[in-house]
Amino acid sequence: MRCAEFIFPRDLVRHWDPKLYAVGSGLDLLNTNNIEGDGGGGGGSSDNSVPLQDIKCLINQEYTINCKRDEEAHEIYVPFSFLRTYFDISGSMSNPSSPQTLEAMNNDVLAGGGGGVAEPQFLWMHSTAKINLPKAKYDARGLFMYFENYNVEARDRVKCISAAEGVPISTQWEKRGYFYPTQIAQFALSHYSKNLTEPAPRINILENADDVRNTWQIPKGCNLSRIWHPKFNSTVIQYETGADFDSAITLNNINQAMDLVLSVDLLLITNSSSLLVTIENHETKRTYRVHYIPADLLLSVQDDNIYYGLGGTQTLNKWRHLTRDLHIDVQKGLALESPKKSSLANKVKRSDLRVVSIAFMGIGFFDNVSLSTSNHLAHFYDAAEWFISHQDLRTGGWPNPVRRSLNGFAELKPGWLSAMGQGHAISVLARAYWHSGDKRYLRAATLGLKPYRVLSKDGGVLAQFMDKYNWYEEYPTTPASFVLNGFIYSLLGLYDLNTTAPSFIAKEAGKLFDQGMLSLKKMLLLYDTGSGTSYDLRHLSLGVAPNLARWDYHATHVNQLLLLATIDSDPIIAQTAERWKGYMFGKRAKHN
Amino acid sequence: MRCAEFIFPRDLVRHWDPKLYAVGSGLDLLNTNNIEGDGGGGGGSSDNSVPLQDIKCLINQEYTINCKRDEEAHEIYVPFSFLRTYFDISGSMSNPSSPQTLEAMNNDVLAGGGGGVAEPQFLWMHSTAKINLPKAKYDARGLFMYFENYNVEARDRVKCISAAEGVPISTQWEKRGYFYPTQIAQFALSHYSKNLTEPAPRINILENADDVRNTWQIPKGCNLSRIWHPKFNSTVIQYETGADFDSAITLNNINQAMDLVLSVDLLLITNSSSLLVTIENHETKRTYRVHYIPADLLLSVQDDNIYYGLGGTQTLNKWRHLTRDLHIDVQKGLALESPKKSSLANKVKRSDLRVVSIAFMGIGFFDNVSLSTSNHLAHFYDAAEWFISHQDLRTGGWPNPVRRSLNGFAELKPGWLSAMGQGHAISVLARAYWHSGDKRYLRAATLGLKPYRVLSKDGGVLAQFMDKYNWYEEYPTTPASFVLNGFIYSLLGLYDLNTTAPSFIAKEAGKLFDQGMLSLKKMLLLYDTGSGTSYDLRHLSLGVAPNLARWDYHATHVNQLLLLATIDSDPIIAQTAERWKGYMFGKRAKHN
Repeated sequence: MRCAEFIFPRDLVRHWDPKLYAVGSGLDLLNTNNIEGDGGGGGGSSDNSVPLQDIKCLINQEYTINCKRDEEAHEIYVPFSFLRTYFDISGSMSNPSSPQTLEAMNNDVLAGGGGGVAEPQFLWMHSTAKINLPKAKYDARGLFMYFENYNVEARDRVKCISAAEGVPISTQWEKRGYFYPTQIAQFALSHYSKNLTEPAPRINILENADDVRNTWQIPKGCNLSRIWHPKFNSTVIQYETGADFDSAITLNNINQAMDLVLSVDLLLITNSSSLLVTIENHETKRTYRVHYIPADLLLSVQDDNIYYGLGGTQTLNKWRHLTRDLHIDVQKGLALESPKKSSLANKVKRSDLRVVSIAFMGIGFFDNVSLSTSNHLAHFYDAAEWFISHQDLRTGGWPNPVRRSLNGFAELKPGWLSAMGQGHAISVLARAYWHSGDKRYLRAATLGLKPYRVLSKDGGVLAQFMDKYNWYEEYPTTPASFVLNGFIYSLLGLYDLNTTAPSFIAKEAGKLFDQGMLSLKKMLLLYDTGSGTSYDLRHLSLGVAPNLARWDYHATHVNQLLLLATIDSDPIIAQTAERWKGYMFGKRAKHN
Repeated sequence: MRCAEFIFPRDLVRHWDPKLYAVGSGLDLLNTNNIEGDGGGGGGSSDNSVPLQDIKCLINQEYTINCKRDEEAHEIYVPFSFLRTYFDISGSMSNPSSPQTLEAMNNDVLAGGGGGVAEPQFLWMHSTAKINLPKAKYDARGLFMYFENYNVEARDRVKCISAAEGVPISTQWEKRGYFYPTQIAQFALSHYSKNLTEPAPRINILENADDVRNTWQIPKGCNLSRIWHPKFNSTVIQYETGADFDSAITLNNINQAMDLVLSVDLLLITNSSSLLVTIENHETKRTYRVHYIPADLLLSVQDDNIYYGLGGTQTLNKWRHLTRDLHIDVQKGLALESPKKSSLANKVKRSDLRVVSIAFMGIGFFDNVSLSTSNHLAHFYDAAEWFISHQDLRTGGWPNPVRRSLNGFAELKPGWLSAMGQGHAISVLARAYWHSGDKRYLRAATLGLKPYRVLSKDGGVLAQFMDKYNWYEEYPTTPASFVLNGFIYSLLGLYDLNTTAPSFIAKEAGKLFDQGMLSLKKMLLLYDTGSGTSYDLRHLSLGVAPNLARWDYHATHVNQLLLLATIDSDPIIAQTAERWKGYMFGKRAKHN
């Protein structure tokens, strides 16, 4: 009911009107070749130098920075290096030969020849995060979000892909590495999605003991024989060698240099048996030996030898299918060897590697040796199997085996469940069930619903906002933290099971989904700051400052809402997504 | 769980570090005479001109503005006229002869002579609104907030002060003018507070028929006599004149030019009787005749005659005390006469006016004629009486007789109650009761609690957030709007009654206050956007964009919390106030 007097005359610096001020207007500007024009004062030529005066600018009575003044035009110029920090925005010079329009940046389409080299421009970016517009209605049988763009195993916080399980090992919250269900599911969902979007892989079968028989180098005193396996109804290779590398049976002269995904069916008899792949970096001429050995070992590196453990003695005498991205296996070995090097210095280009040889040692059987450009479904099913074998059958959860501290909340003890992990796992299992028809996946997914109904304090992931709205917690903190993006992922899991499962199970998942969507619609605006979003609601739970979402999380919120808008027509979803998208371009909610 | 790639190298524009960049540091900078120094590049001299290049800056791929580039220093300079609009901030050139430090601006203390004329500076103000630090623990018997700074009757949206009631008439939501309880209470509370903070007024008694007897000009055929009034136990003046101005009994040659608050006890017998005050603007030499007449008229202007109605025939034959700020009465007359002129053009300086004469016409009695510099308590009690005579005894409410539209909500029909109006009225009445001991004020205040317990839909002001927390609504909208500042004012009313009333009533007010404080603490963070506050919670109620508080409302939120912190030690109040204060200086909550 009060109006503060405005103590500065507003016209000391001219009012800015985008219509008057903009050079040209609207979408034409996306083409940086069109910027010559009639802007307010001064041409665009870089030869045009004008004298400005230095002036001190006192910022909020607190400190002073150096600015420039155009006395004649009544204008003050403020350095961008200050604005960047003060307002948390971004900017850079354009690359004159490839104008970075929004179009170009989002699609990686660089403008071609055309009208010559553009003037250098400064590109002011309120946010540099990306929006992913859904291409179609979301479908539990199809892509998961835009995860085809993810490359989970390449992340620095992935220690390696376990050779025993075929899934990533995280170091995010504990350096020693651990199975992080959320990450494993993202690994699975990205490979499932890549399988749908990428061209079919090139597969080079090196040996199948049937129609493709290769020439193996067999040292004296060693054996290799192709024998009929009645259970598989197929011929397999039986081999016997010494334990040392010199006596290995080896396949040399492998041509498919860049096909770096190895697949093999394998049964080892003794614990001194192993598979060895020799890989060369043809740029650096360095050679790596990647060993897959029956041991309770995750990853170990000695000189150029990189060891991956297939598991302890319990893995002997069992057939298993092994799928390895050799590029990743080398990469993670190098990162372990020199953890202090920057991740960039450790990076090996995929295109620089080629497989030199594949060798087997000890006593065992193998079959179906191939190198391919990718094998996404094999990775996907490795992860799906992990979710079957690692589910707690009592709680239905996939426990997180690490402590987790959220600032201001009591620490979560190892064993906590995450609604995001549960939802992601269900999204994986629903796809595995739909794709394979295997009911084991359906059973695991259904059991995975259980923690959605159990309060966080009782070991589940359920929270309630104001004793009224059910919320599925990414982190089951006390008090509740209400992380938005994890909640929406937990809803997608429910949606996926609802739309792929037989009716009785579908109904159960659908009920949880509907409750969650109701909560989302009632609570969504709690996250809206008028110029961005908050990551969670800890400000309400703890009475502290809001935990604002950085721009990439904000973009995730937008992307998730855009996806939900394809399956829920309530305008609050689509309208909020549009407004939140605007915040990334400097739009703000109005003030009163 | 996702990191967007950063697509621009961050070092294209140097990182800004306030420690390195600031010229000097910390509080020293508040003295603008101390800004010579060792800043990063370039001295402060205005003779120092450097050549910068013009460069186009593409804003969020949407439009282009003209910037400056220092190629050598890798710096881009952005015009402030753009930043002002884009980020909603303020700035202006300093006045070299009176450096506007925060100190100076808040206290109106201008730096004296000292170290000569300062360099011109540009003052970047994130917000220009004012913070009022409480000087002591809030006390219901003392100042109301910082309302001693308010000058309610001078506001453009006050049509005039009703001569019948002695309270302001609002035109905020209806041009014809109406009694707005919230505004009337603010008028009362500001005068009550001014009475405590201003020096005692200079009072010039012109006539009291006892010890001060003046020389009145009495035209032929007219009467003036001093007679004993047994009820008052005092002598009063009885007069009888014709109805025209020439036959008025008149007091001329009044010396106290600038004492413009007229007080008089008055009883008019016929409806052609009146009081006429002649006022001269000694700058413009224009003369105004302000008539107070017994008529159902608010304000009317004809040439230089300004008419205020004392009420209809029912006001005749009754003694009343009239207190008029003649400056305001002239001012409002001029505004009515020329509504199209800017309010500035209509402004008359108080110091330019002087009272020329005071005249009575018709038949009546009067006593105690004085001119004084102020008469705050008289205005205060006029308003307190208004609240007694205009309370709805059934509901306890002071109804708002106008429609009120809040964007997105159903229109409030005339007669709606406001928790802010109720609370403000109770703050007035509690003070009137404490100051006078008159129980009529206490009874009215107590009855005023009633709407706090009645839901908005049933005609009260009570809302509930999430069916859980009681909230007293400034605007009783459906759904609830949860306006923060009005709610806190409603709490202050409860506090005031709680701390001034006898125990039974105090307990009743205290219970409502405690409920409200609980809600406030649980809901306060809902208003925190991490860089400002929202005015209400319409975004939650309606699912729309948050209605951000403009800076002066944000400052009101801060001021209110600072005041509440003096009576409630819960750290959430003081901590939130401090953080919100920081937002006014460009501080932001952290992002994750």
